[in-house]
Amino acid sequence: MSAYLDRNDIRDAYLDELVEFLRLPTVSARNDIAVMQKAADWLIARLESLGAQARLLDSPGMPVVYAEIRGDSDRTILFYNHYDVQPPEPLDAWSSDPFEPVVRNGMLYARGSDDNKGALMSRIHAVEALLKERGTLPVTVKFLIEGEEESGSPSLPVVVDHNRDLLKADACIWENARRDDAGNPTMTLGNKGMYSFELRARTASADSHSGKANLYPNAIWRLVSALASMRDPQGKVLVDGFYESVTPLSASDEAICRETPANGLRQATKLGLDELVPGNDDYSVNRALFYTPSMNIQGIEGGYTGPGHKTVNPSTAFARLECRLVKGQDPDAVAAMIATHLEKHGYGDIQIVNKKAGAWPSYTATDHPFVKVVAEAGSEVYGKPVVVLPSSPGTGPRFVFRHQPDMPIIALGVGHANSRAHAPDENIAVEDQFYTTKQVARIMEKFAAV
Amino acid sequence: MSAYLDRNDIRDAYLDELVEFLRLPTVSARNDIAVMQKAADWLIARLESLGAQARLLDSPGMPVVYAEIRGDSDRTILFYNHYDVQPPEPLDAWSSDPFEPVVRNGMLYARGSDDNKGALMSRIHAVEALLKERGTLPVTVKFLIEGEEESGSPSLPVVVDHNRDLLKADACIWENARRDDAGNPTMTLGNKGMYSFELRARTASADSHSGKANLYPNAIWRLVSALASMRDPQGKVLVDGFYESVTPLSASDEAICRETPANGLRQATKLGLDELVPGNDDYSVNRALFYTPSMNIQGIEGGYTGPGHKTVNPSTAFARLECRLVKGQDPDAVAAMIATHLEKHGYGDIQIVNKKAGAWPSYTATDHPFVKVVAEAGSEVYGKPVVVLPSSPGTGPRFVFRHQPDMPIIALGVGHANSRAHAPDENIAVEDQFYTTKQVARIMEKFAAV
Repeated sequence: MSAYLDRNDIRDAYLDELVEFLRLPTVSARNDIAVMQKAADWLIARLESLGAQARLLDSPGMPVVYAEIRGDSDRTILFYNHYDVQPPEPLDAWSSDPFEPVVRNGMLYARGSDDNKGALMSRIHAVEALLKERGTLPVTVKFLIEGEEESGSPSLPVVVDHNRDLLKADACIWENARRDDAGNPTMTLGNKGMYSFELRARTASADSHSGKANLYPNAIWRLVSALASMRDPQGKVLVDGFYESVTPLSASDEAICRETPANGLRQATKLGLDELVPGNDDYSVNRALFYTPSMNIQGIEGGYTGPGHKTVNPSTAFARLECRLVKGQDPDAVAAMIATHLEKHGYGDIQIVNKKAGAWPSYTATDHPFVKVVAEAGSEVYGKPVVVLPSSPGTGPRFVFRHQPDMPIIALGVGHANSRAHAPDENIAVEDQFYTTKQVARIMEKFAAV
Repeated sequence: MSAYLDRNDIRDAYLDELVEFLRLPTVSARNDIAVMQKAADWLIARLESLGAQARLLDSPGMPVVYAEIRGDSDRTILFYNHYDVQPPEPLDAWSSDPFEPVVRNGMLYARGSDDNKGALMSRIHAVEALLKERGTLPVTVKFLIEGEEESGSPSLPVVVDHNRDLLKADACIWENARRDDAGNPTMTLGNKGMYSFELRARTASADSHSGKANLYPNAIWRLVSALASMRDPQGKVLVDGFYESVTPLSASDEAICRETPANGLRQATKLGLDELVPGNDDYSVNRALFYTPSMNIQGIEGGYTGPGHKTVNPSTAFARLECRLVKGQDPDAVAAMIATHLEKHGYGDIQIVNKKAGAWPSYTATDHPFVKVVAEAGSEVYGKPVVVLPSSPGTGPRFVFRHQPDMPIIALGVGHANSRAHAPDENIAVEDQFYTTKQVARIMEKFAAV
């Protein structure tokens, strides 16, 4: 397997090529179309060198690259990646220039090395290695590479929507994952959904003197009461229907919750805590993290918060919240439930504003055959079992493929627990770049045989 | 009655004298000891001109003036006033110099005219008028005049404590009251007590990513739950014992609540409301305002409140609160009840800091004979009934005399509904200065006869 990828000249060439690609400062937040176009052109040329039909897809935002290589079978894998990176700031916190990649002690330091240029190149190199070794690919592959992921992928939904047939695939390898704290490779099967909103209470046209606190409604009390009506002190959401559509855990989901090392106590210690909210045992932590929706207050503000005391009865207050949603939940439905809850509990005067509901949860079934393919490919390459993470803690744009609910989407990457994605001194282990490349090649081989 | 006070030469002289006194810029916040000493010296000289024994009392702060004039009877009235004033800023919002008093359309404009130099001079002039007319006073009078009231009377408690015997009296006329919106003279029988505090929730050593909201406690949710446990959405305080020691309303208190025009709707309209919290009828408004303690949130803050959304699970949050206390309640006891409540309901980790408990309620019984004396004196002078206000909405230092719970304390002043105390263009009606002076003289006469 992958003798080609073990050749020193090839390893050197692929590392050099990754370094070349990392030199492009493709910071999507900078809106520098020239450098983004340069990266897209670079990718198209590189993909064409593999014999791919490569081109740009129409997009209202930064260039989106599409490429396709027919294989021995119609069975198709879609690779989703992005060529844009986070801003490198603060620059003085870097040990070396973020866009002048350097290898120190086997680690490659550069902005984008972990997130997500390393992973992107691993897909291209895996395809090339198979072509060099076999002449053809065992499966058909498609590349979808966008340039706005670090800015929230604003154009991706419309691009995918306009190209549903083109992007059709039997499985999708998503952009990124990392070795865990114990050094075990991981794969991530999902993203949570999200509904963000703001509650604004306004109880009078102006603040009043608190000596008359019994006469005029207080906006902070009103907001506090409304919030307390929505969630009990233990964290259970009290909004009618909130949990109703959550997909029950399968036997496989339950097994993952039981068997995946969560290391709750170490996580708690990082925050100075003895205990996590659901308890420290693996099952409770995993279930809370992967399969339980949440309602979080991001911030709250009202009245006088300067030094000392001010005898004021505030007439306005607001809170920012966000619900993280799990398999089966719909952000629009949750938004409606919350509005209904407030209305029903007598808080219809509280305004819901600044709403953001367009992020659906995306969970690939843990017992999907493709999960086994990816896990086995990983354990063959790494020589150790791959940890299956049913969901990332965060939210992401996998939902753009929710019109293909049967397509498994699994994230794989080249990083490790201290890769510092989004932070100064972002880095990967050079060796991990080749592990992942080999795993991707092996996935193509194995998927052809399933 | 008070023919002396109707003499034009006397009215002119008294108005001139008030103007002279108002010229002294006795802003206690400026800490300018020279001008404060000058005002105290001026007062001592003026009181000595009445034949009083006048002197300074030992004080850790600004000069405190004491004077005593023996009358025909040992029955004693204590006059409490202050010679300091609020800062005049913003100066450009004044129509004339705040320390160059001017009369326009019968109104005298100057900082301190309403609060409280007009009232102070009304006491001195009333005593002088009686002495001129009768040769002696019908009752003994004592003056206690401080210079730090606008800075919260920090020295008054210790000064009064060190001079309990000296300051003993059968009744006390307090510094100030004003005609109400309908132009009716008022008298105020009390001040609310206050306990201010801050609740601080800290749930971890650092904020965390809200994708793990189910794992780590959220300080805002914790604070919200604790607050919601302390007060129901209708405003009832849920802290055990909070209402227990509140003195039940007497028949007289009930009658005042029923009969005092509260004009709830007009008050509500000022804040863009159709309805006050307790309802718009006089009884409900008066009872809520005069006899019901409150728990008010002054301010709340935690997490991210800038633009947009930030996916953070905040580890700290705080709220500022204050309880206004009514007859029978003790701020230290309320502070203890709140601490016990939090402990008992599982919120013992929430810190109570920035505590301020040293303000007791002070309520003179509405059926005290002295209330009748003051009211009758007022209605004789004004030719209309005096509105009895059982309490000011605010808090004040009457509690320094709580070692004399049987001494009635009633506030009288020279202002009107638009006197703008503490604001630019502070003013009084010149005629009101003489009404109040006459009322004070009449009180002395009538009190001697009770």
